[in-house]
Amino acid sequence: MLKNQNTNFINAPNQVREYKSGNDSVRISSLGGFGDVTQNMFVYEFIPNGDLAKSQIIIVDCGVGFPEEDAFGVDLQIPDTHYLQDKKDRILGIFITHGHEDHIGAVRFILPILGQNIPVYAPKLAAAFIEARLGEVQIRANLQVYDETTLPITKGPFIIDPIRVTHSIPDTFHFAITTPMGIFYHGSDFKFDLFPLDGKGADYQKIARVGQTGKVIALMSDSLGADKEGWSPSESSIAQNFKQEIVSAKGRVFVTSISSNIVRWTQAIEYGKSVGRKIVIVGFSVDRAIKIAKDLGYLTLNDTDIVPVERVKNFNENKLLFLVAGFAGQPDSALSKMIMGKHKIKVKAGDKVIFSSPDYIPGTTSNIYNMIDLLSKMGAEVVYGEKEELHVSGHGYQKEHALLINLLKPKFLLPIGGNYRHLKDYQQMSKKLGYTEEQVILPDFDASATFHSNGAVDTNFHISIRKVLIDGFGVGDVGTTVLRDRKTLAEDGMFSVVLLIEKESGKLVKAPVVLSRGFVFMKENTELIDFLKLEITNKFNQATSSPANMDFIREEIQAFLEEIIYKKTGRQPMVLPLVIEV
Amino acid sequence: MLKNQNTNFINAPNQVREYKSGNDSVRISSLGGFGDVTQNMFVYEFIPNGDLAKSQIIIVDCGVGFPEEDAFGVDLQIPDTHYLQDKKDRILGIFITHGHEDHIGAVRFILPILGQNIPVYAPKLAAAFIEARLGEVQIRANLQVYDETTLPITKGPFIIDPIRVTHSIPDTFHFAITTPMGIFYHGSDFKFDLFPLDGKGADYQKIARVGQTGKVIALMSDSLGADKEGWSPSESSIAQNFKQEIVSAKGRVFVTSISSNIVRWTQAIEYGKSVGRKIVIVGFSVDRAIKIAKDLGYLTLNDTDIVPVERVKNFNENKLLFLVAGFAGQPDSALSKMIMGKHKIKVKAGDKVIFSSPDYIPGTTSNIYNMIDLLSKMGAEVVYGEKEELHVSGHGYQKEHALLINLLKPKFLLPIGGNYRHLKDYQQMSKKLGYTEEQVILPDFDASATFHSNGAVDTNFHISIRKVLIDGFGVGDVGTTVLRDRKTLAEDGMFSVVLLIEKESGKLVKAPVVLSRGFVFMKENTELIDFLKLEITNKFNQATSSPANMDFIREEIQAFLEEIIYKKTGRQPMVLPLVIEV
Repeated sequence: MLKNQNTNFINAPNQVREYKSGNDSVRISSLGGFGDVTQNMFVYEFIPNGDLAKSQIIIVDCGVGFPEEDAFGVDLQIPDTHYLQDKKDRILGIFITHGHEDHIGAVRFILPILGQNIPVYAPKLAAAFIEARLGEVQIRANLQVYDETTLPITKGPFIIDPIRVTHSIPDTFHFAITTPMGIFYHGSDFKFDLFPLDGKGADYQKIARVGQTGKVIALMSDSLGADKEGWSPSESSIAQNFKQEIVSAKGRVFVTSISSNIVRWTQAIEYGKSVGRKIVIVGFSVDRAIKIAKDLGYLTLNDTDIVPVERVKNFNENKLLFLVAGFAGQPDSALSKMIMGKHKIKVKAGDKVIFSSPDYIPGTTSNIYNMIDLLSKMGAEVVYGEKEELHVSGHGYQKEHALLINLLKPKFLLPIGGNYRHLKDYQQMSKKLGYTEEQVILPDFDASATFHSNGAVDTNFHISIRKVLIDGFGVGDVGTTVLRDRKTLAEDGMFSVVLLIEKESGKLVKAPVVLSRGFVFMKENTELIDFLKLEITNKFNQATSSPANMDFIREEIQAFLEEIIYKKTGRQPMVLPLVIEV
Repeated sequence: MLKNQNTNFINAPNQVREYKSGNDSVRISSLGGFGDVTQNMFVYEFIPNGDLAKSQIIIVDCGVGFPEEDAFGVDLQIPDTHYLQDKKDRILGIFITHGHEDHIGAVRFILPILGQNIPVYAPKLAAAFIEARLGEVQIRANLQVYDETTLPITKGPFIIDPIRVTHSIPDTFHFAITTPMGIFYHGSDFKFDLFPLDGKGADYQKIARVGQTGKVIALMSDSLGADKEGWSPSESSIAQNFKQEIVSAKGRVFVTSISSNIVRWTQAIEYGKSVGRKIVIVGFSVDRAIKIAKDLGYLTLNDTDIVPVERVKNFNENKLLFLVAGFAGQPDSALSKMIMGKHKIKVKAGDKVIFSSPDYIPGTTSNIYNMIDLLSKMGAEVVYGEKEELHVSGHGYQKEHALLINLLKPKFLLPIGGNYRHLKDYQQMSKKLGYTEEQVILPDFDASATFHSNGAVDTNFHISIRKVLIDGFGVGDVGTTVLRDRKTLAEDGMFSVVLLIEKESGKLVKAPVVLSRGFVFMKENTELIDFLKLEITNKFNQATSSPANMDFIREEIQAFLEEIIYKKTGRQPMVLPLVIEV
């Protein structure tokens, strides 16, 4: 394998040596926007001799984002591929770093847009996750599996060489992307776990060889842990706690974690089996992840070790270990249902529930604590992050970043995978390694970083990035107007009044009809509603003294109603008068 | 003062000694519900000889709660005083422990319900906060100020003796409540800060004297920090960091914190002045809190040290320190507006913004991080909890609880002021001190703890506690129906269709009129809307073949529309057909 790697890598610097410097450039754009942790999708564009029409493109990752709390009703967010609209035939491949949803989850939405024949290169586990998702929506893709033994993949002016690293999911890779100008190192989500539980460490030698070429122009680097000094704890550092919690339990044990966290499930299974427990898998996402990991050999689990949910009753409670989906408390997930009594399996006093998952995920923290309170109240023992270290971050801290930078010696740093505060943290951290502020590129949300063959870098080029929201079956059809309306409706509901007007006379045909929801409880507020109806009628009669202009009347009545409702109730429902001529 | 205190306390045990044991009981109810951190309001009811109609009542605290994230549009939540409806004339007083909103904020809503002549006893700072709020709504109250020199207050069978403790606001007290049966110690929010910055420590001797009587039946105790081992850090422990951040700043400095955190403002002012900075107060809530604290002598701030917002331009940037409201990122608060460019003062590159406030408050965490990202992006230096200790909890840890219990030696423990997980933590912690599980009373949310004169305790009595929500000017008029509607509207908006029907013929007078918001962007989805209109017309024509029953038609069309919309879009807007006869 070592020989193979050596051979592999020789290709890249060779090509660099042959390069005749010209007016070329490499432009890196983030279709999810710089300064976003999720919806990862990066465009590497080689522009020969300033000729944009001849640019060639590879894409790294294609993940979903999770909408902010005030994006009501929106399920997911995906990168905006608008910029690629007229460049589809120049996309040479999509390269996936690892199998987390924010790196692969948008493939099923975006592949149909860009073209299903574009090859998608992914490591084994990620490829299986992508395939399972594509199968659900009956999309066929040109999926190619790579691993560390794969020869560097040549695509037009790019040579992509995958390098194994560690993260919170097996099979995570970085890419050394060699271009005629030099090497761009795509170092997305990683940590340097020196004692990985699956024994598969990062390939430090290969990283070093990339650096030894002296040709690394830029390192695109994960930055999420850049505010933390030191070295992130190893997965194995929590093994002792985690094992103790499972082994010492007297009744049923439930473990919940991120579905794709194969290493955590492997640990749970091992510790459970060591004390004679059978494994019960609850929840679609965990079931799928474990099945795939099992098929691919990432996880050992014999059929005889598994007990289906239906047969749980045949076993003693202290002989069962449940692996459960839904650590974040989504209302439809297995764990929520089990707590609410809406699942075949119901949590009860004497059970132990172990949250081996992050405490803080934007938008879900209160859900998590609500579940913990409910479980405590039921008399279940709850073990979670605030109590005990049962989860470690998958993102390296400052010392790991310093090591990667030292191995690569890149000329420029381009932090990614963090919110703006993390990018700034990365910039501060790299100062300690002698980098100037100018060497740390921080493009605006929708700007690109363009590296020129003369050594200059600029971030002047902007692409347009809108929010592409997935709501129901619709991709991108929910925009800011709809969201703003939902927000107003959420705050104080709606108050609609239908005015039927006789065309000829311009007079009201009958009393205004009121339709209101989410504003006040109609049945208990007839007095208020009657008052408003009367006021509307009066206002209308005043308004129609001038020649009947329906739009004008509608707007007048809307403004009037908004004012009077606010004065009477302090609320601002969405006021919707509907004037219909009959 | 010591003499005074000694004298004071002698009253209480005397009365205990005279007590002839009978069939009496003391019932403690939480009108905000047990297991809630906020909306503190506790009812102490002495029931002589089992005669409920003769019970006498005192109330401790009267605070607001903060609605959960899915209580759309709701501003505040207050305790449910329904239980007191027929007992108003037996309420002898309301006793306030300290001036935080979740202990005083509901006075303005509840006093008019219970009766404005009920005396409200509060420490100086809390009383001033209450008075300011009552003034806004023109409510007069019978406010009585107490402090540690006040003689114990006798009210019917109760003798209430305030005891100074420390917390994150000055002037915080516990109450030793002596009843004919024995002493109940109301130990709400506290920590034992042994090096308090204002020099006013807890009165450990007085607590010990309460315990020395041997008559303490129960300790109602803050439990929020009961999961943390050791002793909570002192306010003075962050002073060094905080000072350094202010003193070392080169440009403008902005400090944000909880408005009522007088000690933090005092520190900021002192450090700012020490390097020649003038103080600028921005935001209504901070302005009011500082004014009150200044008037009462809790804070020294000369008028010459203050610069009004309008005159900021006359000063060098490095001569200004801003105290800013809105650490939690409420959109209408000063800090949000300053960041969004909607305020006279605008944050810009080179400014330093210090968050000296908690990171995690349910429902606000994402707001806080959004602000930090925006500030980072603008080029401001942001200092916050994840970076550096700039805030300490106001709630004691396990060792502080152990000390209080050791000083009081209560027979029973009744943890309050925490979510259920914290109550459980408190129970676990007290086991280490030799308490049995039965000695730690954990009533259900709406149950009372009844202490009988024969030494028994039960939690069988339940009161009804509904959510009383404040939305706009309305108290309690937003219930579950309205909230459920708002949630549906928030998710997928509304789709309303007006059908005008001729009375005689039962036929449609004109094509259905559609009114929709928050569902799809109407202008871009005319095809879908036209399709739906057509389907509705068809459906209506089918439905009216049977004798015209308007309710039936409405329900038919609603069910039909819900189904067809879900099939076409995967969304579930609120469908509201309106059938009007003309």
